[in-house]
Amino acid sequence: MLNWYLQSGNEGDVVSSTRIRLARNIKGFNFVNRYTKNDANKIIEMMENIIPNLGYGLKLIRLKDLDDITKISLVEKHLISPEFSYNKGETGAIAINDDENICIMINEEDHLRIQVLSTGLELENALNLAIEIDKKLEELIPYAYNDKYGFLTSCPTNVGTGLRASVMVHLPALSKTKNIRKVLEAVNSFDMNIRGLYGEGSIVQGDMYQISNKQSLGISEEEIIKNLKIITDKVIEQEKLARKILAKKEIELEDKVYRAYGILINSRKLSSEECNNLLSDVKLGTDMGIIKEMNDFKVKKLEIYTKPANLQKFLGQTLDAYDRDVKRAEIIKRIVAE
Amino acid sequence: MLNWYLQSGNEGDVVSSTRIRLARNIKGFNFVNRYTKNDANKIIEMMENIIPNLGYGLKLIRLKDLDDITKISLVEKHLISPEFSYNKGETGAIAINDDENICIMINEEDHLRIQVLSTGLELENALNLAIEIDKKLEELIPYAYNDKYGFLTSCPTNVGTGLRASVMVHLPALSKTKNIRKVLEAVNSFDMNIRGLYGEGSIVQGDMYQISNKQSLGISEEEIIKNLKIITDKVIEQEKLARKILAKKEIELEDKVYRAYGILINSRKLSSEECNNLLSDVKLGTDMGIIKEMNDFKVKKLEIYTKPANLQKFLGQTLDAYDRDVKRAEIIKRIVAE
Repeated sequence: MLNWYLQSGNEGDVVSSTRIRLARNIKGFNFVNRYTKNDANKIIEMMENIIPNLGYGLKLIRLKDLDDITKISLVEKHLISPEFSYNKGETGAIAINDDENICIMINEEDHLRIQVLSTGLELENALNLAIEIDKKLEELIPYAYNDKYGFLTSCPTNVGTGLRASVMVHLPALSKTKNIRKVLEAVNSFDMNIRGLYGEGSIVQGDMYQISNKQSLGISEEEIIKNLKIITDKVIEQEKLARKILAKKEIELEDKVYRAYGILINSRKLSSEECNNLLSDVKLGTDMGIIKEMNDFKVKKLEIYTKPANLQKFLGQTLDAYDRDVKRAEIIKRIVAE
Repeated sequence: MLNWYLQSGNEGDVVSSTRIRLARNIKGFNFVNRYTKNDANKIIEMMENIIPNLGYGLKLIRLKDLDDITKISLVEKHLISPEFSYNKGETGAIAINDDENICIMINEEDHLRIQVLSTGLELENALNLAIEIDKKLEELIPYAYNDKYGFLTSCPTNVGTGLRASVMVHLPALSKTKNIRKVLEAVNSFDMNIRGLYGEGSIVQGDMYQISNKQSLGISEEEIIKNLKIITDKVIEQEKLARKILAKKEIELEDKVYRAYGILINSRKLSSEECNNLLSDVKLGTDMGIIKEMNDFKVKKLEIYTKPANLQKFLGQTLDAYDRDVKRAEIIKRIVAE
């Protein structure tokens, strides 16, 4: 069975992945920014007892038992946040399964952050699974909950449902037709966030954007994902429209995506940034049925294993930046030839 | 039998081709810049009678019987000069064989310009063949000759032997290591010319340079080619040294030549200039044994058939610039896949 991030999903030519995150805190402990290291440990121990009985093949791992490359490889797969990886080495832990579609961050910004990930556009299924896990956890640990506000969270923006639903969308055509700014503004005006690959403040790479809800209070979980679905559908529609415009200039589009393909599979040294940009064009070419030599599975594999830490995990070697660039080019050839 | 320009030759990894040109004028006629159109016709008629008896499979063709694309395709193959093609449509003619290694321009800057071309470095053989043809012609037509000066020519720089010997060299490594200027200056200081692909004043494309003798008076034909050979050997030596320097940075070199290869065979639209630059890197990669997917024959074929007029000759179609760029990319794929 392939990990979720290697599978093709609904609207997979535009929507790369879906993520549901529920922020939860445990009654009787201060929030993360005010609790003691002892509290953090108690929470981990509490979870260590619960996780084996929760099912889903979840295993608890303390961040301090993971080497840096492994931690960054989890960030690259959007399973943990960059801040969690860098700053919570002592007090952080995760509960994760082999498929890596469920990852609970423990002692991140909140005591618990239940995350469910899926390829493609799968807001409902992902939400249902997250709620199922949440309900099971609720039976085993007392949540910090207020009848008026709902779930209490470390940061007020998450109070209420504690839900952040997000979809990762690939918008190369909107970018090439210079319509991306207009779409970003429209999404924002509908009370949604749209931003770079690793969330807030991160740089857009390879035309990948994350759309997520802003509101989590005074609205139900179902409404949140319904609204997000509506906006995502609009963005998909706009991106597909832009692709149709590009398709009219057939030769120019083919030229663009095949040049990217040609460089990607022939280079001997490739930086992460250049790789992301080339892969964006190659993905567009594959998704539009132009590049016959590639398929979605290979593109997804390339997207994962060319990332700095996953590259090193894949090879089982620690590499400096220069060697990574060389090995990246090698791995690409290997995956494409498979 | 392949045409000479598709064959591999001596020092073929640096020397692309050799050309010998003898400028001759016919006694009893004014030089080209002073004669009448009637004189020009008489000379062509004279040659029409002679050529069939000369051998070598030479056929006489009047420029006015050639379409523009064919004329430019001959320029691209260095068989006729650009000026001859553009300005001598009414009075010019050529005597050419199927292999296209012999081409006599009639009524160019001189009444006759006997040219012998060869792949690789073949100064002696080419000179011997040119002299052989020259001797046969001399028996059939009275040359304008002066005991003191030698052969008389329209421009004083050609008086004496009337010989211009030239070699076309590919100097990508000297260019990449920024040593090209030094080498160009050295060649010039030895009383040789070194310049772009189509002779005097032309732009350097694809790192191709033409080295030729300046002096034609007071020196024998053998001395001219001996001196040119010495200089060419020095240039080859320097280029090979530069290639060794590049080879030390193995990954960088492989990356450079394979990226060029990747773009060359994957683009869907390619300008002549970009094509020349890519081919220069691909040729370097092939000549240095780095690019295994290519060989010298294919590179030579690409060099010829991607040129604007030869491309149209090859396809038997008249194409505008945009269509040429598209067809160029197609032809490249076809030749590479052969």
